[in-house]
Amino acid sequence: MKLSSIGEFGLIEEYIAPEFKNLIQKHMTGIGDDCAIIPVGKTTSHLFTTDMLIEKTHFLREKITPFQLGFKSLAVNLSDIAAMGGKPVSSFLSVGFPEDINIKWVEEFMRGYKDLSQKENTPLLGGDTTKSEDKIIINVGVTGEIQNGKIKRRNGAKEGDIICVTNTLGDSAGGLQCILNNIRISESNQKLFDQHLTPYPHVKEGQWLAEKEEVHAMIDTSDGLSSDLMHILKASNARAHIDVEKIPMTKELIDTAERYNWNSLEMAVSGGEDYGLLLTIDRNAFSSIKKAFIREFQKELFPVGEIVTGEPKIQYLKENKPIEDIRSGYRHF
Amino acid sequence: MKLSSIGEFGLIEEYIAPEFKNLIQKHMTGIGDDCAIIPVGKTTSHLFTTDMLIEKTHFLREKITPFQLGFKSLAVNLSDIAAMGGKPVSSFLSVGFPEDINIKWVEEFMRGYKDLSQKENTPLLGGDTTKSEDKIIINVGVTGEIQNGKIKRRNGAKEGDIICVTNTLGDSAGGLQCILNNIRISESNQKLFDQHLTPYPHVKEGQWLAEKEEVHAMIDTSDGLSSDLMHILKASNARAHIDVEKIPMTKELIDTAERYNWNSLEMAVSGGEDYGLLLTIDRNAFSSIKKAFIREFQKELFPVGEIVTGEPKIQYLKENKPIEDIRSGYRHF
Repeated sequence: MKLSSIGEFGLIEEYIAPEFKNLIQKHMTGIGDDCAIIPVGKTTSHLFTTDMLIEKTHFLREKITPFQLGFKSLAVNLSDIAAMGGKPVSSFLSVGFPEDINIKWVEEFMRGYKDLSQKENTPLLGGDTTKSEDKIIINVGVTGEIQNGKIKRRNGAKEGDIICVTNTLGDSAGGLQCILNNIRISESNQKLFDQHLTPYPHVKEGQWLAEKEEVHAMIDTSDGLSSDLMHILKASNARAHIDVEKIPMTKELIDTAERYNWNSLEMAVSGGEDYGLLLTIDRNAFSSIKKAFIREFQKELFPVGEIVTGEPKIQYLKENKPIEDIRSGYRHF
Repeated sequence: MKLSSIGEFGLIEEYIAPEFKNLIQKHMTGIGDDCAIIPVGKTTSHLFTTDMLIEKTHFLREKITPFQLGFKSLAVNLSDIAAMGGKPVSSFLSVGFPEDINIKWVEEFMRGYKDLSQKENTPLLGGDTTKSEDKIIINVGVTGEIQNGKIKRRNGAKEGDIICVTNTLGDSAGGLQCILNNIRISESNQKLFDQHLTPYPHVKEGQWLAEKEEVHAMIDTSDGLSSDLMHILKASNARAHIDVEKIPMTKELIDTAERYNWNSLEMAVSGGEDYGLLLTIDRNAFSSIKKAFIREFQKELFPVGEIVTGEPKIQYLKENKPIEDIRSGYRHF
């Protein structure tokens, strides 16, 4: 059987995670959330996450600047720390560079990596540099810390919770489509390119939300709303209703998608790489948390649906009626 | 300027490490030792290390079994924890697999990874799995812990210290030469293949040595005696005399090298991937520590030279006379 037939999650769930269950001590959390959790002392836990980026799988060398690639390599990891409400502490960078890479390229790559390191006050503490035959390979690991009672996991969603996201969805997928279709950057699509190439992780939002006990579950939107929400639903054994008309999209995405005949709603639901946060909030606290969030960050917290009872599944609704194919929920403006 | 012109250490020392110095808090240790060190509480520190293995750069798919590759991927990281005297706590595994990799191959890889995880009681707590276009790519990160006063660094070597290694040197380089020259495994070279393909990290030895305050500096022998010792000398601002006749080599290495006209001493000094420990011990305590080491582990602790004053440099000696070219130190048996 080839690897392609079981996919990434199948590989982890069936072949990797079960093998190590008996080695994991009771107080540790291993595979199955955005970060691993190791308690240190009575009040604090350390968080760990790691992500690998491989040329041609995750990026095309000629379609992303080295600055952007350095920035993004760290951003996607900080986003996992944000997803649990943690504060980043340090990062580790392994790079495999082909010999024909120019020093100037490396300097720019490190400048991008450092730019976000400084903004989020997260020092690079170690790593590995090695030669790669032809492709650029990057692996970043980030450590974080959080008070034990404040960790937001995927498994806390409760019936009645309001499901929210901290940014508009689909811009990154739109940016990727622009890149793959050789569409030039213009004022009308700049935002899409930016969101795809230099996503800003919602670290401060995550820490702020972690302070609210009425926030029950949280994850970052890295694989797309549908996929990320399913992680919460499976871990929480719950079902979700999503109102497709509430899914937040930028004018830039809607206009660009319309121009090239793409389905913006599908991009918002399945595109991935948004690197905002997806969370569920006790419905009684939702309104006050939303107001405080807007006050704190001068931006919206978008409700997109609610948690209901039932087996893990997402039911998309339009005008309160179930729709089976998300493509039929597509709206023109 | 191409990357190849400055090399791995040049890249780290000139382009990466200096950029992050101002972000690193005073109590942390970043780039420049086997592991990064982050103190937690007053008595304990956490250790972090990471290593990347890329197909065709670090291994050939047809020359190493997946079990061996899984084992070795973890081993090379545990060896860095051992180098500081730490106890491994958890590991993180990122893999990039081409789609044509068979599930059976992945199972065997994980079986090898798990074998060492179990032997060293170190659970896999997380990671990343992704698609790679053609090459197998592996990045492992390991966390460890150690009491603050016991951390062994590279910078503690003192004049008069005896320089020792915890295993024979060059076997791994000999194994690699056998593999690259398509030499078949036989009774007379099996040990070389084993040392190259499944090196066993000296974790327990490292922890035991960390208990001795007369052990002043330590590193693992991953790049070869000459290169690893220079790291200690530069960090400690000291010089070394190495007696080439004391450099420990197995009969298997000497015999195999003689048979194929290789220079075994050069392999022992520059080969690398031995994954034992290289340390300096107060000369007054050397004899008692050596005896206790042999009693504890039923194997030798090999003295190979001493620390002297002077700028960082290794002076090789034969019959107490300086030799300029290590190749001239080659001995036949």
